[in-house]
Amino acid sequence: MAQVGQRARKASSLMAASETAKKNQALLATADAIIAAKSTLMAANQKDLLNGKEKGLSDAMLDRLELTPARLDTMIESLSQVAALADPVGNITDLDYRPSGIQVGKMRVPLGVIGIIYESRPNVTIEAASLCLKSGNAVILRGGSEALHSNQALAACIQAGLKASGLPEDAVQVVETKDREAVHHLITMPQYVDVIVPRGGKGLIERISNSAKVPVIKHLDGNCHVYIDSEADTNKALNIAFNAKTRRYGVCNAMETLLVDQACAQALLPELAQRYQEKGVELRGCEQTQAIIDCTPATDEDWSTEYIAPILAVKVVADLDQAIAHINQYGSHHTDSIVTENYTKGRRFLREVDSASVMINASTSFADGFEYGLGAEIGISTDKIHVRGPVGLVGLTSQKYIVLGDGQIREP
Amino acid sequence: MAQVGQRARKASSLMAASETAKKNQALLATADAIIAAKSTLMAANQKDLLNGKEKGLSDAMLDRLELTPARLDTMIESLSQVAALADPVGNITDLDYRPSGIQVGKMRVPLGVIGIIYESRPNVTIEAASLCLKSGNAVILRGGSEALHSNQALAACIQAGLKASGLPEDAVQVVETKDREAVHHLITMPQYVDVIVPRGGKGLIERISNSAKVPVIKHLDGNCHVYIDSEADTNKALNIAFNAKTRRYGVCNAMETLLVDQACAQALLPELAQRYQEKGVELRGCEQTQAIIDCTPATDEDWSTEYIAPILAVKVVADLDQAIAHINQYGSHHTDSIVTENYTKGRRFLREVDSASVMINASTSFADGFEYGLGAEIGISTDKIHVRGPVGLVGLTSQKYIVLGDGQIREP
Repeated sequence: MAQVGQRARKASSLMAASETAKKNQALLATADAIIAAKSTLMAANQKDLLNGKEKGLSDAMLDRLELTPARLDTMIESLSQVAALADPVGNITDLDYRPSGIQVGKMRVPLGVIGIIYESRPNVTIEAASLCLKSGNAVILRGGSEALHSNQALAACIQAGLKASGLPEDAVQVVETKDREAVHHLITMPQYVDVIVPRGGKGLIERISNSAKVPVIKHLDGNCHVYIDSEADTNKALNIAFNAKTRRYGVCNAMETLLVDQACAQALLPELAQRYQEKGVELRGCEQTQAIIDCTPATDEDWSTEYIAPILAVKVVADLDQAIAHINQYGSHHTDSIVTENYTKGRRFLREVDSASVMINASTSFADGFEYGLGAEIGISTDKIHVRGPVGLVGLTSQKYIVLGDGQIREP
Repeated sequence: MAQVGQRARKASSLMAASETAKKNQALLATADAIIAAKSTLMAANQKDLLNGKEKGLSDAMLDRLELTPARLDTMIESLSQVAALADPVGNITDLDYRPSGIQVGKMRVPLGVIGIIYESRPNVTIEAASLCLKSGNAVILRGGSEALHSNQALAACIQAGLKASGLPEDAVQVVETKDREAVHHLITMPQYVDVIVPRGGKGLIERISNSAKVPVIKHLDGNCHVYIDSEADTNKALNIAFNAKTRRYGVCNAMETLLVDQACAQALLPELAQRYQEKGVELRGCEQTQAIIDCTPATDEDWSTEYIAPILAVKVVADLDQAIAHINQYGSHHTDSIVTENYTKGRRFLREVDSASVMINASTSFADGFEYGLGAEIGISTDKIHVRGPVGLVGLTSQKYIVLGDGQIREP
């Protein structure tokens, strides 16, 4: 793994200095290579699927593992999309003159070497590689052993793309080893790896965060809230609360707890409950909620739970203060929204809710790199260090100071 | 230590929501408290100095430990300076409309709880506390046991300032324990501490980085370079090379290796060597340097060494490529400067040198929060994650996404 790291470090210098056009060319050539290798890719994926069935992987796992023609088309499309994004590297901002006569600004630069650790979905290989490549980084990809053949076949397409554009092939390395020892090495060599981005279940991410000696960009939970304030517009409240829960159940930006101000609970909850029940959403309510609608009692554990399922916890709160306190205490600092027409309460919610995304009168479902205009995302960070919320190309870069002088020296 | 962490976490919510005026009031009230407590502070400091002498601390350590009237005045002055800085918290940028109709922007927010671990200098107590306070964070300060009484007396002034302005006193906690166990706890409780900033010797910082389970903002080495290009203006080259080495020897932005292009080595080195030798700077040169000036031979170790002393390594290089390669290989990614009149070479140096500060025609001595316009700095980061270079108020904050809608829901 140290050799992989050394090669990545070396490639990262070349990547940092490489022209935008070359990086775009590599992305488009990778897309071409995937088009040309469709049957090879499907055959490699078949091997993984057969092995997976033999090993008794669940149907859900096998589904994530599968490369369908539609999924290959999505990969190809995403490569052109990333090629079309603006290159963040080299961007200079804030170049101001200082009293000493020097001009000081910031230049955006790649992070260096990024390690991605992920589970079964082979499309992550292309998504992650393309974002790291466009942002001028070298990347070490360590996918799940169950997707080994698929990932190797995709890696060959990326290598072809890098070669075609004259970029170093070591800029994208797919680590093939099956043992966990390799992961441990990858996350404990800060001399070769600048940041780790784990993608997968909470267990994987916690394991990595606990043992890493390299900074980790991660998100663990998406326990999102909608708070319906006493001065909410009824239609906005009903639509947002319904959409945030039911648009998709398995995503991290889905609402898991609905907070309703006591002043409007009686007016809103019955109609909302009916819409949820028609959709098949199980409701778990606090005592006040139980007095208004038919639902099972919520325990303290419900407030902390990310269901990722058609289940919703509902709590009636006394006021904005209680809503904010509840969100900051039980939430996962992912995405939370207030529905209100009141200026002061909206402004306070924005400032005081300590989450990666805080919204007024919008569904939590919008918390997403594409919807935010990042073009693509490598994940969502619920940390505060380095980057918070959806992580796109800019999140994979840093800024150095640049100083332009005319011979200035500093007096004591 | 867990209780200290819990109290800090609680205080951090109040600090994040606190008004700019209150924070400024707390800083100015702390300055007043220091003025009123001058004799108490000097007495407490005398205790530490006596204990230090008994323990046999070096003169340099005792000097760093001492609180002189001039040093107290600097503290008082720095508190008003920090109060006068713009408040970064709540600043909103990039608020753009998206095709869905939502408006997406970023709001600057405090990091939460910051842990500062430092050695003998008690003025760090005030510097660090004032920057953390102004940036809306809670802070846990763990100073050296040799400065215990001084730090406690200063902490009392800060507590008085917080109290006077109605801010939570737990926003600044000085940990008094002497045992190393406490430091270990502080750096391994991510549930209560968001980031650690160690200040002190390389040994301390390495120890902390290796055991921390919390992100660390740090700099280890300042092995800075000046590269005199073949197309350098002679006067600028001589002045910058002399200033970068001799302005101060003990600072991290001092030049430690001078790189000279072979095309101008013969013309420049003799005069430079004379100036250095008059100033008492020992020169250690590569073979080509030895052929031009009188100096001791440099070994490979010299290229990696931060002398923090009147010693300079000198190397003649073939061209810009070799200079950049040398800096990226042996440097510490702190601050490096090129002297050149050539546009293309200057532009390449800016882009390709992988350091926190990269300069053209300016002395490395300018790498400093005050010179860059940050107003004050808590340290210099040679990492790339989160913040790079001098770290001021903004480096102690993060950005969350804010979304302003009008009832938007997201369609599948």
